[in-house]
Amino acid sequence: MERKAKIGVVTISDRASQGIYEDISGKAIIEYLEEILTNPFDVVYKIIPDEQDLIEKTLIYLADVEECDLILTTGGTGPAKRDVTPEATENVSEKIMPGFGEFMRQISLQQVPTAILSRQTAGIRNHALIINLPGKPQSIKFTLEKIFPAIPYCIDLIGGAYLTTDESKVVAFRPKKK
Amino acid sequence: MERKAKIGVVTISDRASQGIYEDISGKAIIEYLEEILTNPFDVVYKIIPDEQDLIEKTLIYLADVEECDLILTTGGTGPAKRDVTPEATENVSEKIMPGFGEFMRQISLQQVPTAILSRQTAGIRNHALIINLPGKPQSIKFTLEKIFPAIPYCIDLIGGAYLTTDESKVVAFRPKKK
Amino acid sequence: MERKAKIGVVTISDRASQGIYEDISGKAIIEYLEEILTNPFDVVYKIIPDEQDLIEKTLIYLADVEECDLILTTGGTGPAKRDVTPEATENVSEKIMPGFGEFMRQISLQQVPTAILSRQTAGIRNHALIINLPGKPQSIKFTLEKIFPAIPYCIDLIGGAYLTTDESKVVAFRPKKK
Repeated sequence: MERKAKIGVVTISDRASQGIYEDISGKAIIEYLEEILTNPFDVVYKIIPDEQDLIEKTLIYLADVEECDLILTTGGTGPAKRDVTPEATENVSEKIMPGFGEFMRQISLQQVPTAILSRQTAGIRNHALIINLPGKPQSIKFTLEKIFPAIPYCIDLIGGAYLTTDESKVVAFRPKKK
Repeated sequence: MERKAKIGVVTISDRASQGIYEDISGKAIIEYLEEILTNPFDVVYKIIPDEQDLIEKTLIYLADVEECDLILTTGGTGPAKRDVTPEATENVSEKIMPGFGEFMRQISLQQVPTAILSRQTAGIRNHALIINLPGKPQSIKFTLEKIFPAIPYCIDLIGGAYLTTDESKVVAFRPKKK
Repeated sequence: MERKAKIGVVTISDRASQGIYEDISGKAIIEYLEEILTNPFDVVYKIIPDEQDLIEKTLIYLADVEECDLILTTGGTGPAKRDVTPEATENVSEKIMPGFGEFMRQISLQQVPTAILSRQTAGIRNHALIINLPGKPQSIKFTLEKIFPAIPYCIDLIGGAYLTTDESKVVAFRPKKK
């Protein structure tokens, strides 16, 4: 594949978007991508408040205008009133990918019993795989390293850019052609 | 928190609601709550038939008029025609909490292969966490003791009453404030 | 039960439906059913392209006109644009059975990390249990032997035919009557 990969990173947080605290989560995602990806890629990074309409517009912009191959969100997936990231993700997705949310809850259950409170989901729009990551910085790397083996092949299947990884860190699984 | 907790317990069963058999499941829920909760709380207890419209009205009443913090249902989550508790729960919930159903099915799979037939779900309305428990009395305590560690913190996050537990029985998990 | 069981087997694949390759997956399903079921049954077998409208019509026909007790699909459950089997299944189902998809993804995770990309689901229409199986022939037997213990009891509960199995191969779980 010729096209350079583009990855959207969206921090969804009322307080981080107002500058009340630093966005450590968004930065943790970008650092992890830089650590494991061996293909060239651009990052489009956004910090926005927990407004469903704005989250939807941001995801649509990243998928349709920026033509991202992967969009990773952090924040807004809990049960509180302002947590609306999963609803926004479902509304803009052409296909829902239930396996990501199930798997992410299952792996965080090894860490905390409140993992079942997370409403993280994933979906597809245009040639972007959109995944809701946890909000807490310390959970982001833990989650990404477990789900990343499935991500490059998913992006292949939806017509996105070809991602390659540093195999000493993450082995991207692609089924062998027969 | 000053406000006394209020918990709705709803047995959904055509036969129990007609008095054809005793409601052991609803009683098992109340007994378990009395055994583990150390905060004062009131119970609002209802037995109703498997009518979707009536289940929805009952859940709305408990969440909006009684202002319950937790609503536990039992019954009506199987695949049969009259089993409509999950649909009613989804229709009245402002947010769906998929992690509860996934986790409850996963833990019952340790007991019976037919655990995958359960359609139990959970959701949030007003400041009530609504959870569909299994119908069988013997599964209720087994399930509640595994999901309860996540319940008090969830109710904190949605603005409900502060629940405390007998820690020799159930440890309510609340993340440490930084 | 007197009525002879009827099972629909639907291969959903653009290429198999055009005869570009042989439908090994549909055949693997039928062979497995013949191997484990001890009750008499008829199979209604269809190969169709990945067209959502056609998949929906086929499932409706099998559930309502043929009055199948079980409908097993293979193909069309991935993330690609033409993969629309789960959407078709959800649209025609009266009830969704989330436990099947969760469990099938969980067991395939033992084999490949890309198991989380599968969007397989299950549902009920009339007295038919509809289940999306994986597309790959080698995964079909692996999946069926793990989910089959729960299938006969589910079909009992929705008023379908009484299935019996060769217990040296699959033990159908039915809870004991009290």
